[in-house]
Amino acid sequence: MTAEQNQLFSKIRIVLVETSHPGNIGAAARAMKNMGLARLYLVNPVNFPHEKALFRAASARDVVENAVVCTDLSEAIGPCQLVLGTSARQRRIPWPLVTPKQAAQQVTAQGDVEGDIAIVFGRESKGLKNEELQQCQLHLNIPTSDEYSSLNLAMAVQVVGYEIFCAAVDQPPAPAWDQPPATNAELEHFFEHLEDTLAVVGFHDPENPRQLMTRLRRLFLRIAPDHMEISILRGFLKAVNDLKNKGANI
Amino acid sequence: MTAEQNQLFSKIRIVLVETSHPGNIGAAARAMKNMGLARLYLVNPVNFPHEKALFRAASARDVVENAVVCTDLSEAIGPCQLVLGTSARQRRIPWPLVTPKQAAQQVTAQGDVEGDIAIVFGRESKGLKNEELQQCQLHLNIPTSDEYSSLNLAMAVQVVGYEIFCAAVDQPPAPAWDQPPATNAELEHFFEHLEDTLAVVGFHDPENPRQLMTRLRRLFLRIAPDHMEISILRGFLKAVNDLKNKGANI
Repeated sequence: MTAEQNQLFSKIRIVLVETSHPGNIGAAARAMKNMGLARLYLVNPVNFPHEKALFRAASARDVVENAVVCTDLSEAIGPCQLVLGTSARQRRIPWPLVTPKQAAQQVTAQGDVEGDIAIVFGRESKGLKNEELQQCQLHLNIPTSDEYSSLNLAMAVQVVGYEIFCAAVDQPPAPAWDQPPATNAELEHFFEHLEDTLAVVGFHDPENPRQLMTRLRRLFLRIAPDHMEISILRGFLKAVNDLKNKGANI
Repeated sequence: MTAEQNQLFSKIRIVLVETSHPGNIGAAARAMKNMGLARLYLVNPVNFPHEKALFRAASARDVVENAVVCTDLSEAIGPCQLVLGTSARQRRIPWPLVTPKQAAQQVTAQGDVEGDIAIVFGRESKGLKNEELQQCQLHLNIPTSDEYSSLNLAMAVQVVGYEIFCAAVDQPPAPAWDQPPATNAELEHFFEHLEDTLAVVGFHDPENPRQLMTRLRRLFLRIAPDHMEISILRGFLKAVNDLKNKGANI
Protein backbone atom coordinates (compact mmCIF):
# COMPACT_ATOMS: atom_id res chain seq x y z
CA MET A 1 0.00 0.00 0.00
CA THR A 2 1.10 3.57 -0.63
CA ALA A 3 1.70 6.08 2.15
CA GLU A 4 -1.65 7.76 1.32
CA GLN A 5 -3.47 4.43 1.57
CA ASN A 6 -1.81 3.67 4.89
CA GLN A 7 -2.81 7.08 6.17
CA LEU A 8 -6.42 6.55 5.13
CA PHE A 9 -6.59 3.06 6.66
CA SER A 10 -5.12 4.28 9.93
CA LYS A 11 -8.11 6.63 10.29
CA ILE A 12 -10.78 3.94 9.96
CA ARG A 13 -12.41 2.61 13.13
CA ILE A 14 -14.49 -0.54 13.02
CA VAL A 15 -17.00 -0.23 15.85
CA LEU A 16 -18.90 -3.31 17.10
CA VAL A 17 -21.81 -2.55 19.42
CA GLU A 18 -22.73 -5.04 22.17
CA THR A 19 -21.38 -8.09 20.42
CA SER A 20 -22.62 -11.29 22.12
CA HIS A 21 -20.22 -13.90 20.77
CA PRO A 22 -16.48 -13.41 21.30
CA GLY A 23 -15.84 -15.64 18.28
CA ASN A 24 -17.42 -12.98 16.11
CA ILE A 25 -15.05 -10.37 17.53
CA GLY A 26 -12.08 -12.54 16.57
CA ALA A 27 -13.43 -13.32 13.12
CA ALA A 28 -14.12 -9.62 12.55
CA ALA A 29 -10.54 -8.80 13.61
CA ARG A 30 -9.17 -11.30 11.12
CA ALA A 31 -11.40 -9.92 8.35
CA MET A 32 -10.16 -6.43 9.22
CA LYS A 33 -6.49 -7.33 9.10
CA ASN A 34 -6.96 -9.18 5.81
CA MET A 35 -8.27 -5.89 4.44
CA GLY A 36 -5.58 -3.66 5.96
CA LEU A 37 -7.69 -2.37 8.88
CA ALA A 38 -6.37 -2.38 12.44
CA ARG A 39 -8.48 -0.18 14.71
CA LEU A 40 -11.22 -2.15 16.47
CA TYR A 41 -13.62 -0.48 18.95
CA LEU A 42 -15.93 -2.58 21.10
CA VAL A 43 -18.90 -0.91 22.74
CA ASN A 44 -20.03 -2.97 25.76
CA PRO A 45 -19.03 -6.39 24.43
CA VAL A 46 -20.94 -9.12 26.27
CA ASN A 47 -17.99 -11.52 26.63
CA PHE A 48 -14.63 -9.87 26.28
CA PRO A 49 -11.73 -10.51 26.66
CA HIS A 50 -12.28 -14.16 25.76
CA GLU A 51 -10.00 -16.87 24.39
CA LYS A 52 -12.44 -17.58 21.55
CA ALA A 53 -11.86 -14.07 20.23
CA LEU A 54 -8.11 -14.72 20.09
CA PHE A 55 -8.59 -18.16 18.55
CA ARG A 56 -10.84 -17.01 15.74
CA ALA A 57 -8.60 -14.00 15.07
CA ALA A 58 -5.82 -16.39 13.93
CA SER A 59 -2.95 -14.09 12.90
CA ALA A 60 -4.93 -10.98 13.80
CA ARG A 61 -4.46 -11.40 17.58
CA ASP A 62 -2.87 -7.95 17.62
CA VAL A 63 -6.12 -6.38 16.36
CA VAL A 64 -8.05 -8.04 19.22
CA GLU A 65 -5.41 -7.20 21.82
CA ASN A 66 -5.34 -3.55 20.76
CA ALA A 67 -9.14 -3.23 20.65
CA VAL A 68 -10.51 -0.21 22.52
CA VAL A 69 -13.39 -1.12 24.83
CA CYS A 70 -15.94 1.68 25.33
CA THR A 71 -19.00 2.00 27.51
CA ASP A 72 -21.09 3.91 25.04
CA LEU A 73 -21.25 4.57 21.34
CA SER A 74 -20.40 8.29 21.61
CA GLU A 75 -17.07 7.36 23.16
CA ALA A 76 -16.22 5.27 20.08
CA ILE A 77 -17.40 7.72 17.43
CA GLY A 78 -17.17 11.13 19.18
CA PRO A 79 -14.13 12.50 17.32
CA CYS A 80 -15.07 10.97 13.96
CA GLN A 81 -15.87 13.14 10.96
CA LEU A 82 -17.69 10.48 9.00
CA VAL A 83 -19.86 7.85 10.69
CA LEU A 84 -21.60 5.06 8.80
CA GLY A 85 -24.03 2.70 10.50
CA THR A 86 -24.95 -0.69 9.10
CA SER A 87 -28.65 -1.33 8.87
CA ALA A 88 -30.55 -4.32 7.57
CA ARG A 89 -33.66 -2.44 6.57
CA GLN A 90 -35.03 0.95 5.70
CA ARG A 91 -36.42 2.81 8.76
CA ARG A 92 -39.73 4.59 9.12
CA ILE A 93 -38.08 7.90 8.38
CA PRO A 94 -35.80 7.03 5.45
CA TRP A 95 -32.14 7.94 5.88
CA PRO A 96 -29.49 8.26 3.16
CA LEU A 97 -28.75 4.64 2.35
CA VAL A 98 -25.58 3.45 0.62
CA THR A 99 -24.34 0.12 -0.69
CA PRO A 100 -20.93 -1.15 0.46
CA LYS A 101 -19.45 0.10 -2.83
CA GLN A 102 -20.88 3.58 -2.35
CA ALA A 103 -19.79 3.57 1.28
CA ALA A 104 -16.26 2.66 0.21
CA GLN A 105 -16.23 5.60 -2.18
CA GLN A 106 -17.34 7.92 0.61
CA VAL A 107 -14.62 6.57 2.87
CA THR A 108 -11.80 6.82 0.35
CA ALA A 109 -12.92 10.36 -0.55
CA GLN A 110 -11.95 11.29 3.05
CA GLY A 111 -8.26 10.68 2.33
CA ASP A 112 -7.21 14.29 2.90
CA VAL A 113 -9.45 14.90 5.85
CA GLU A 114 -7.77 14.86 9.24
CA GLY A 115 -10.43 13.22 11.41
CA ASP A 116 -11.29 9.58 11.86
CA ILE A 117 -13.97 7.58 10.08
CA ALA A 118 -16.19 5.08 11.89
CA ILE A 119 -18.16 2.17 10.53
CA VAL A 120 -20.58 0.89 13.13
CA PHE A 121 -21.96 -2.66 13.27
CA GLY A 122 -24.84 -3.65 15.56
CA ARG A 123 -25.75 -6.60 17.73
CA GLU A 124 -25.85 -10.08 16.16
CA SER A 125 -29.54 -10.45 16.88
CA LYS A 126 -30.97 -6.98 16.60
CA GLY A 127 -28.51 -4.73 14.81
CA LEU A 128 -28.31 -1.07 15.78
CA LYS A 129 -31.08 0.74 17.62
CA ASN A 130 -32.81 3.70 16.03
CA GLU A 131 -31.13 6.18 18.36
CA GLU A 132 -27.73 4.72 17.42
CA LEU A 133 -28.48 4.90 13.71
CA GLN A 134 -29.54 8.50 14.17
CA GLN A 135 -25.98 9.36 15.17
CA CYS A 136 -24.73 8.19 11.76
CA GLN A 137 -24.53 10.34 8.63
CA LEU A 138 -25.11 7.41 6.32
CA HIS A 139 -26.74 4.03 6.63
CA LEU A 140 -25.02 1.14 4.96
CA ASN A 141 -26.95 -1.84 3.70
CA ILE A 142 -25.36 -5.00 2.31
CA PRO A 143 -27.51 -6.40 -0.50
CA THR A 144 -28.76 -9.90 0.31
CA SER A 145 -31.20 -12.51 -0.81
CA ASP A 146 -34.77 -11.85 0.36
CA GLU A 147 -34.93 -15.42 1.54
CA TYR A 148 -32.20 -15.04 4.19
CA SER A 149 -30.97 -11.54 4.79
CA SER A 150 -29.17 -11.86 8.13
CA LEU A 151 -25.41 -11.90 7.56
CA ASN A 152 -23.08 -13.07 10.28
CA LEU A 153 -21.49 -10.01 11.94
CA ALA A 154 -17.90 -10.80 10.92
CA MET A 155 -19.05 -11.51 7.36
CA ALA A 156 -20.54 -8.02 7.21
CA VAL A 157 -17.21 -6.59 8.41
CA GLN A 158 -15.48 -8.66 5.70
CA VAL A 159 -17.68 -7.38 2.89
CA VAL A 160 -17.37 -3.74 3.93
CA GLY A 161 -13.61 -4.04 4.50
CA TYR A 162 -13.19 -5.72 1.13
CA GLU A 163 -15.00 -2.91 -0.66
CA ILE A 164 -12.94 -0.26 1.13
CA PHE A 165 -9.75 -2.11 0.25
CA CYS A 166 -10.76 -2.38 -3.42
CA ALA A 167 -11.78 1.29 -3.57
CA ALA A 168 -8.61 2.50 -1.85
CA VAL A 169 -6.30 0.64 -4.15
CA ASP A 170 -7.74 2.55 -7.09
CA GLN A 171 -8.79 5.88 -5.72
CA PRO A 172 -9.75 9.17 -7.39
CA PRO A 173 -8.37 12.26 -5.63
CA ALA A 174 -10.62 13.77 -2.98
CA PRO A 175 -12.38 17.04 -3.85
CA ALA A 176 -10.81 20.05 -2.15
CA TRP A 177 -12.70 21.71 0.72
CA ASP A 178 -11.70 24.75 2.76
CA GLN A 179 -12.83 23.52 6.17
CA PRO A 180 -12.51 20.27 8.10
CA PRO A 181 -15.76 18.35 8.57
CA ALA A 182 -17.48 18.69 11.92
CA THR A 183 -16.80 15.86 14.36
CA ASN A 184 -19.54 13.64 15.73
CA ALA A 185 -19.17 15.37 19.12
CA GLU A 186 -19.59 18.81 17.52
CA LEU A 187 -22.68 17.55 15.73
CA GLU A 188 -24.18 16.13 18.92
CA HIS A 189 -23.58 19.42 20.76
CA PHE A 190 -25.21 21.23 17.90
CA PHE A 191 -28.28 18.96 18.07
CA GLU A 192 -28.57 19.57 21.80
CA HIS A 193 -28.30 23.32 21.29
CA LEU A 194 -30.82 23.17 18.44
CA GLU A 195 -33.36 21.16 20.44
CA ASP A 196 -33.05 23.53 23.41
CA THR A 197 -33.48 26.54 21.17
CA LEU A 198 -36.49 25.07 19.39
CA ALA A 199 -38.10 24.57 22.80
CA VAL A 200 -37.12 28.08 23.92
CA VAL A 201 -38.88 29.68 20.95
CA GLY A 202 -41.91 27.45 21.44
CA PHE A 203 -41.52 25.52 18.20
CA HIS A 204 -40.75 22.21 19.87
CA ASP A 205 -42.55 20.55 22.75
CA PRO A 206 -40.19 18.05 24.42
CA GLU A 207 -43.28 16.38 25.95
CA ASN A 208 -44.69 15.77 22.48
CA PRO A 209 -41.64 15.64 20.21
CA ARG A 210 -43.27 13.81 17.30
CA GLN A 211 -40.63 13.33 14.58
CA LEU A 212 -39.17 16.82 14.70
CA MET A 213 -35.67 16.02 15.98
CA THR A 214 -35.44 12.85 13.87
CA ARG A 215 -36.17 14.87 10.77
CA LEU A 216 -33.69 17.59 11.74
CA ARG A 217 -31.03 14.98 12.52
CA ARG A 218 -31.55 13.38 9.15
CA LEU A 219 -31.30 16.80 7.50
CA PHE A 220 -28.08 17.94 9.17
CA LEU A 221 -26.35 14.56 9.20
CA ARG A 222 -27.04 14.18 5.51
CA ILE A 223 -25.37 17.50 4.82
CA ALA A 224 -22.17 16.55 6.68
CA PRO A 225 -21.58 20.14 7.85
CA ASP A 226 -18.04 21.40 8.14
CA HIS A 227 -16.52 22.88 11.28
CA MET A 228 -17.21 26.50 10.35
CA GLU A 229 -20.77 25.77 9.27
CA ILE A 230 -21.48 24.28 12.69
CA SER A 231 -19.94 27.38 14.30
CA ILE A 232 -22.19 29.63 12.22
CA LEU A 233 -25.31 27.62 13.06
CA ARG A 234 -24.46 27.61 16.76
CA GLY A 235 -23.74 31.35 16.62
CA PHE A 236 -27.23 31.84 15.25
CA LEU A 237 -28.76 29.63 17.97
CA LYS A 238 -26.87 31.58 20.62
CA ALA A 239 -28.19 34.87 19.20
CA VAL A 240 -31.74 33.49 19.39
CA ASN A 241 -31.24 32.47 23.01
CA ASP A 242 -29.71 35.86 23.86
CA LEU A 243 -32.72 37.56 22.34
CA LYS A 244 -35.06 35.43 24.46
CA ASN A 245 -33.08 36.25 27.60
CA LYS A 246 -33.07 39.96 26.80
CA GLY A 247 -36.81 39.83 26.11
CA ALA A 248 -37.39 38.20 29.49
CA ASN A 249 -35.49 40.99 31.22
CA ILE A 250 -37.39 43.85 29.66
CA MET B 1 -35.13 -11.95 -7.68
CA THR B 2 -36.37 -12.27 -11.23
CA ALA B 3 -36.88 -15.61 -13.00
CA GLU B 4 -33.64 -15.03 -14.97
CA GLN B 5 -31.71 -14.38 -11.78
CA ASN B 6 -33.16 -17.49 -10.16
CA GLN B 7 -32.20 -19.51 -13.19
CA LEU B 8 -28.64 -18.19 -13.10
CA PHE B 9 -28.26 -18.77 -9.37
CA SER B 10 -29.57 -22.31 -9.65
CA LYS B 11 -26.66 -23.11 -11.97
CA ILE B 12 -23.91 -22.00 -9.58
CA ARG B 13 -22.08 -24.66 -7.56
CA ILE B 14 -19.89 -23.66 -4.65
CA VAL B 15 -17.25 -26.38 -4.34
CA LEU B 16 -15.18 -26.75 -1.15
CA VAL B 17 -12.17 -29.06 -1.43
CA GLU B 18 -11.00 -31.06 1.62
CA THR B 19 -12.34 -28.65 4.19
CA SER B 20 -10.90 -29.45 7.65
CA HIS B 21 -13.27 -27.57 9.96
CA PRO B 22 -16.99 -28.37 9.79
CA GLY B 23 -17.71 -24.91 11.23
CA ASN B 24 -16.34 -23.43 8.01
CA ILE B 25 -18.73 -25.55 5.97
CA GLY B 26 -21.66 -24.21 7.98
CA ALA B 27 -20.45 -20.62 7.79
CA ALA B 28 -19.94 -20.97 4.03
CA ALA B 29 -23.48 -22.35 3.69
CA ARG B 30 -24.88 -19.37 5.54
CA ALA B 31 -22.85 -16.95 3.39
CA MET B 32 -24.19 -18.73 0.29
CA LYS B 33 -27.81 -18.55 1.32
CA ASN B 34 -27.44 -14.87 2.27
CA MET B 35 -26.32 -14.31 -1.33
CA GLY B 36 -29.01 -16.44 -2.97
CA LEU B 37 -26.81 -19.51 -3.58
CA ALA B 38 -27.97 -23.00 -2.62
CA ARG B 39 -25.80 -25.66 -4.27
CA LEU B 40 -22.92 -26.76 -2.07
CA TYR B 41 -20.44 -29.48 -3.16
CA LEU B 42 -17.97 -30.94 -0.69
CA VAL B 43 -14.95 -32.80 -2.04
CA ASN B 44 -13.60 -35.15 0.64
CA PRO B 45 -14.55 -33.08 3.67
CA VAL B 46 -12.43 -34.09 6.69
CA ASN B 47 -15.26 -33.95 9.23
CA PHE B 48 -18.70 -34.19 7.74
CA PRO B 49 -21.55 -34.49 8.58
CA HIS B 50 -20.94 -32.66 11.85
CA GLU B 51 -23.18 -30.73 14.23
CA LYS B 52 -20.86 -27.71 14.08
CA ALA B 53 -21.64 -27.34 10.39
CA LEU B 54 -25.35 -27.20 11.17
CA PHE B 55 -24.83 -24.83 14.09
CA ARG B 56 -22.77 -22.31 12.13
CA ALA B 57 -25.17 -22.52 9.18
CA ALA B 58 -27.90 -20.93 11.36
CA SER B 59 -30.91 -20.61 9.02
CA ALA B 60 -29.00 -22.21 6.12
CA ARG B 61 -29.26 -25.77 7.48
CA ASP B 62 -30.97 -26.74 4.25
CA VAL B 63 -27.86 -25.81 2.26
CA VAL B 64 -25.72 -28.07 4.48
CA GLU B 65 -28.26 -30.90 4.46
CA ASN B 66 -28.51 -30.80 0.67
CA ALA B 67 -24.74 -30.64 0.14
CA VAL B 68 -23.37 -33.14 -2.38
CA VAL B 69 -20.35 -35.02 -1.05
CA CYS B 70 -17.85 -36.09 -3.75
CA THR B 71 -14.70 -38.14 -3.63
CA ASP B 72 -12.81 -36.15 -6.18
CA LEU B 73 -12.88 -32.73 -7.77
CA SER B 74 -13.83 -33.97 -11.25
CA GLU B 75 -17.04 -35.38 -9.83
CA ALA B 76 -17.99 -31.92 -8.52
CA ILE B 77 -17.06 -29.91 -11.59
CA GLY B 78 -17.33 -32.46 -14.41
CA PRO B 79 -20.52 -31.17 -16.09
CA CYS B 80 -19.71 -27.49 -15.56
CA GLN B 81 -19.15 -25.10 -18.45
CA LEU B 82 -17.33 -22.46 -16.46
CA VAL B 83 -15.00 -23.31 -13.58
CA LEU B 84 -13.24 -20.71 -11.47
CA GLY B 85 -10.63 -21.67 -8.89
CA THR B 86 -9.68 -19.41 -5.99
CA SER B 87 -5.99 -18.86 -5.60
CA ALA B 88 -4.07 -16.73 -3.14
CA ARG B 89 -1.16 -16.06 -5.44
CA GLN B 90 -0.04 -16.14 -9.04
CA ARG B 91 1.40 -19.53 -10.01
CA ARG B 92 4.63 -20.22 -11.75
CA ILE B 93 2.82 -20.61 -15.02
CA PRO B 94 0.58 -17.55 -15.13
CA TRP B 95 -3.09 -18.28 -15.60
CA PRO B 96 -5.91 -15.86 -16.46
CA LEU B 97 -6.45 -14.16 -13.12
CA VAL B 98 -9.63 -12.29 -12.21
CA THR B 99 -10.79 -10.22 -9.26
CA PRO B 100 -14.09 -11.14 -7.56
CA LYS B 101 -15.80 -8.31 -9.50
CA GLN B 102 -14.49 -9.62 -12.82
CA ALA B 103 -15.41 -13.18 -11.83
CA ALA B 104 -18.94 -12.05 -11.03
CA GLN B 105 -19.22 -10.46 -14.47
CA GLN B 106 -18.04 -13.70 -16.07
CA VAL B 107 -20.58 -15.66 -14.05
CA THR B 108 -23.54 -13.39 -14.77
CA ALA B 109 -22.61 -13.38 -18.45
CA GLN B 110 -23.38 -17.13 -18.40
CA GLY B 111 -27.08 -16.47 -17.81
CA ASP B 112 -28.11 -17.93 -21.15
CA VAL B 113 -25.71 -20.84 -21.11
CA GLU B 114 -27.20 -24.19 -20.25
CA GLY B 115 -24.43 -25.77 -18.20
CA ASP B 116 -23.50 -25.27 -14.60
CA ILE B 117 -20.87 -22.91 -13.22
CA ALA B 118 -18.47 -23.95 -10.44
CA ILE B 119 -16.46 -21.80 -8.07
CA VAL B 120 -13.86 -23.90 -6.29
CA PHE B 121 -12.36 -23.07 -2.89
CA GLY B 122 -9.32 -24.91 -1.51
CA ARG B 123 -8.17 -26.21 1.86
CA GLU B 124 -8.04 -23.82 4.84
CA SER B 125 -4.29 -24.27 5.17
CA LYS B 126 -3.00 -24.79 1.67
CA GLY B 127 -5.64 -23.74 -0.81
CA LEU B 128 -5.92 -25.61 -4.10
CA LYS B 129 -3.12 -27.73 -5.51
CA ASN B 130 -1.60 -26.86 -8.86
CA GLU B 131 -3.24 -29.84 -10.55
CA GLU B 132 -6.61 -28.72 -9.20
CA LEU B 133 -6.11 -25.12 -10.35
CA GLN B 134 -5.16 -26.43 -13.76
CA GLN B 135 -8.69 -27.82 -14.12
CA CYS B 136 -10.08 -24.28 -13.86
CA GLN B 137 -10.54 -21.83 -16.74
CA LEU B 138 -9.98 -18.81 -14.57
CA HIS B 139 -8.19 -18.17 -11.31
CA LEU B 140 -9.89 -15.90 -8.87
CA ASN B 141 -7.88 -13.85 -6.41
CA ILE B 142 -9.41 -11.78 -3.61
CA PRO B 143 -7.36 -8.62 -3.06
CA THR B 144 -5.91 -8.47 0.46
CA SER B 145 -3.42 -6.62 2.58
CA ASP B 146 0.17 -7.79 2.03
CA GLU B 147 0.52 -8.06 5.78
CA TYR B 148 -2.08 -10.81 6.22
CA SER B 149 -3.43 -12.33 3.05
CA SER B 150 -5.05 -15.53 4.29
CA LEU B 151 -8.82 -15.15 4.39
CA ASN B 152 -10.96 -17.56 6.34
CA LEU B 153 -12.58 -20.00 3.88
CA ALA B 154 -16.18 -18.96 4.57
CA MET B 155 -15.17 -15.29 4.29
CA ALA B 156 -13.85 -15.98 0.80
CA VAL B 157 -17.17 -17.63 -0.11
CA GLN B 158 -18.95 -14.56 1.32
CA VAL B 159 -16.95 -12.07 -0.75
CA VAL B 160 -17.34 -14.00 -4.00
CA GLY B 161 -21.05 -14.64 -3.36
CA TYR B 162 -21.56 -10.97 -2.54
CA GLU B 163 -19.99 -9.88 -5.83
CA ILE B 164 -22.07 -12.35 -7.81
CA PHE B 165 -25.21 -11.19 -6.06
CA CYS B 166 -24.40 -7.51 -6.72
CA ALA B 167 -23.61 -8.19 -10.36
CA ALA B 168 -26.77 -10.26 -10.89
CA VAL B 169 -29.21 -7.99 -9.16
CA ASP B 170 -29.34 -4.74 -11.04
CA GLN B 171 -28.20 -1.62 -9.27
CA PRO B 172 -30.50 -1.35 -6.26
CA PRO B 173 -33.29 1.20 -6.79
CA ALA B 174 -32.67 4.62 -5.32
CA PRO B 175 -33.61 4.58 -1.63
CA ALA B 176 -37.19 5.53 -0.95
CA TRP B 177 -37.80 8.99 0.42
CA ASP B 178 -40.96 10.08 2.14
CA GLN B 179 -41.07 13.69 0.92
CA PRO B 180 -40.62 15.45 -2.43
CA PRO B 181 -37.51 17.62 -2.76
CA ALA B 182 -37.95 21.34 -2.13
CA THR B 183 -38.34 23.45 -5.25
CA ASN B 184 -35.90 26.19 -6.14
CA ALA B 185 -38.56 28.79 -5.25
CA GLU B 186 -39.04 27.21 -1.81
CA LEU B 187 -35.30 27.30 -1.28
CA GLU B 188 -35.01 30.94 -2.29
CA HIS B 189 -37.85 31.92 0.05
CA PHE B 190 -36.12 30.03 2.79
CA PHE B 191 -32.82 31.87 2.18
CA GLU B 192 -34.63 35.22 2.26
CA HIS B 193 -36.39 34.27 5.49
CA LEU B 194 -33.11 33.02 6.95
CA GLU B 195 -31.19 36.18 6.06
CA ASP B 196 -33.92 38.42 7.53
CA THR B 197 -34.01 36.37 10.71
CA LEU B 198 -30.24 36.40 11.08
CA ALA B 199 -30.37 40.19 10.84
CA VAL B 200 -33.31 40.37 13.28
CA VAL B 201 -31.42 38.48 15.96
CA GLY B 202 -28.29 40.56 15.34
CA PHE B 203 -26.15 37.72 14.01
CA HIS B 204 -25.91 39.15 10.49
CA ASP B 205 -25.11 42.69 9.40
CA PRO B 206 -26.45 43.26 5.84
CA GLU B 207 -24.05 46.25 5.58
CA ASN B 208 -21.10 43.97 6.27
CA PRO B 209 -22.25 40.53 5.12
CA ARG B 210 -18.81 38.93 4.76
CA GLN B 211 -19.26 35.31 3.60
CA LEU B 212 -22.11 34.38 5.93
CA MET B 213 -24.90 33.90 3.39
CA THR B 214 -22.54 32.32 0.88
CA ARG B 215 -21.56 29.72 3.45
CA LEU B 216 -25.16 29.10 4.48
CA ARG B 217 -26.24 28.78 0.85
CA ARG B 218 -23.50 26.27 0.20
CA LEU B 219 -24.56 24.34 3.31
CA PHE B 220 -28.29 24.13 2.55
CA LEU B 221 -27.99 23.71 -1.20
CA ARG B 222 -25.59 20.84 -0.63
CA ILE B 223 -28.13 19.13 1.60
CA ALA B 224 -30.94 19.27 -1.00
CA PRO B 225 -33.67 19.63 1.65
CA ASP B 226 -37.04 18.05 1.08
CA HIS B 227 -40.36 19.92 1.21
CA MET B 228 -41.13 19.09 4.84
CA GLU B 229 -37.62 19.93 6.01
CA ILE B 230 -37.95 23.40 4.52
CA SER B 231 -41.34 23.78 6.25
CA ILE B 232 -39.77 22.82 9.58
CA LEU B 233 -36.87 25.24 9.13
CA ARG B 234 -39.21 28.07 8.15
CA GLY B 235 -41.48 27.25 11.10
CA PHE B 236 -38.48 27.68 13.36
CA LEU B 237 -37.53 31.00 11.72
CA LYS B 238 -41.10 32.22 12.12
CA ALA B 239 -41.06 31.29 15.81
CA VAL B 240 -37.83 33.29 16.23
CA ASN B 241 -39.40 36.31 14.54
CA ASP B 242 -42.56 36.03 16.65
CA LEU B 243 -40.42 35.99 19.76
CA LYS B 244 -38.64 39.16 18.62
CA ASN B 245 -41.94 40.88 17.89
CA LYS B 246 -43.37 39.89 21.25
CA GLY B 247 -40.21 41.12 22.96
CA ALA B 248 -40.48 44.45 21.14
CA ASN B 249 -44.09 44.91 22.26
CA ILE B 250 -43.47 44.27 25.91
